[in-house]
Amino acid sequence: MADFKRWKEQRLARADVSRKGSVDEPIEGIVRLLNSHDRFCTTSSCSGRLVVLEQPPLPPSAEATTGFEIQKQNCSWLMVTHEICTIEKVLTALQRASDDALFKFEPFVLHVQCQELQDAQLLHKVAIEAGFRNSGITVGRKGKIMMAVRSTHCLEVPLSRKGKLMVSEEYVDFVVQVANQKMEENQRRIDRFYSSLQFALENQYHSSSLSFEEKEKSNAMHYYRRIKKSAETQKDECHSPGKNSGLESDHET
Amino acid sequence: MADFKRWKEQRLARADVSRKGSVDEPIEGIVRLLNSHDRFCTTSSCSGRLVVLEQPPLPPSAEATTGFEIQKQNCSWLMVTHEICTIEKVLTALQRASDDALFKFEPFVLHVQCQELQDAQLLHKVAIEAGFRNSGITVGRKGKIMMAVRSTHCLEVPLSRKGKLMVSEEYVDFVVQVANQKMEENQRRIDRFYSSLQFALENQYHSSSLSFEEKEKSNAMHYYRRIKKSAETQKDECHSPGKNSGLESDHET
Repeated sequence: MADFKRWKEQRLARADVSRKGSVDEPIEGIVRLLNSHDRFCTTSSCSGRLVVLEQPPLPPSAEATTGFEIQKQNCSWLMVTHEICTIEKVLTALQRASDDALFKFEPFVLHVQCQELQDAQLLHKVAIEAGFRNSGITVGRKGKIMMAVRSTHCLEVPLSRKGKLMVSEEYVDFVVQVANQKMEENQRRIDRFYSSLQFALENQYHSSSLSFEEKEKSNAMHYYRRIKKSAETQKDECHSPGKNSGLESDHET
Repeated sequence: MADFKRWKEQRLARADVSRKGSVDEPIEGIVRLLNSHDRFCTTSSCSGRLVVLEQPPLPPSAEATTGFEIQKQNCSWLMVTHEICTIEKVLTALQRASDDALFKFEPFVLHVQCQELQDAQLLHKVAIEAGFRNSGITVGRKGKIMMAVRSTHCLEVPLSRKGKLMVSEEYVDFVVQVANQKMEENQRRIDRFYSSLQFALENQYHSSSLSFEEKEKSNAMHYYRRIKKSAETQKDECHSPGKNSGLESDHET
């Protein structure tokens, strides 16, 4: 407990090494709320963004298995926004492309170090309920417990090849509309996550003197009913013997 | 232990309720290997696929938060393949579209129920090393431990609007090439996962009489060196105070 608290103080005192260098405005409340609790410490986050990036053409399949890693290192952002975006902004960014360029929606992602496994379980439950179905827990060799909030949502559309736009402006406009709708759905899920998080933390750590297990029990039926319900529309894996659980479903078709 | 074994026998005896109804050929070895160990039971999987699907237009942003869920229920597959695919196959599928249609690459996904947390940690380690960076563990209320192998890779390209193709055949051809390269990279990662899995299971559960902890220790340095190395190219979140860990990075830019 004391160790985690000390470690957290050091961690939060560090400089922000991310490209942007600060927490995205749409999730400031979530980050502040989590860090106000002794048992949690956020380590990285992105509220969700629309990106135009360019990268060298993919290596021929014959090439080394590191092809994608190499490509990732050489890619550069031509546009990044954490808000709804316009076709003009995307087209302007594409004009600067000399390589293969693509337009991408990247959903909300949040990493939270947790003091104990039960804390990560609580966050995971809230994340799944809010619709972030690719969320998961990582337990390091030395017991470091990390909870990652992840979405199944994606949009990745190649637009330019060797700097030349391959599609019509009407198509770019349509793709921007689709991306903006995903950004809006992303924001709705963030809002859902924030409000259930407030409820869950209040209920778990502040209210009456019930033990963690007792409170878990009291929330469980409500939670599992919701998970079961969501699971029913999620049986889209290729192989899945018997009943599938909402916690097990990734592919969003 | 006995409980898990009994549960596993029942689970594997169940009918396969997935749309396809069988394990995908490229991952049969992985599924067989895991299920040959008492401590693991695979519950769902997909080796990775290319899909053409159609769905009703996205609801206007004003609509209810359930927009995407509704849309998901109404979507239908026009093409699904677990192999490299041709432009002809995609164009033929698109001809059957009367709604909005899109072309999608969905990477390898695998869900494995594990007897103990340390078993899930082992799988997670192997998955991260193989490049499946969105992998994570789920711990249920009653202690059910699930490990999900997930990739950060994605490709999702809208192609038709209200049944009308919005792009040139040259563009569809390019997108199919990109998708095929992702399928090949996906297969390379599956191969890496399979071989490190064989090594890890052999090393952890069959060889000498070292305890789990002792073996963890002996593998750890090698593992963490690799994780640290991969983490260095993955600092692409918006907010990330201090040193980031490969286990914490999602966005693939």
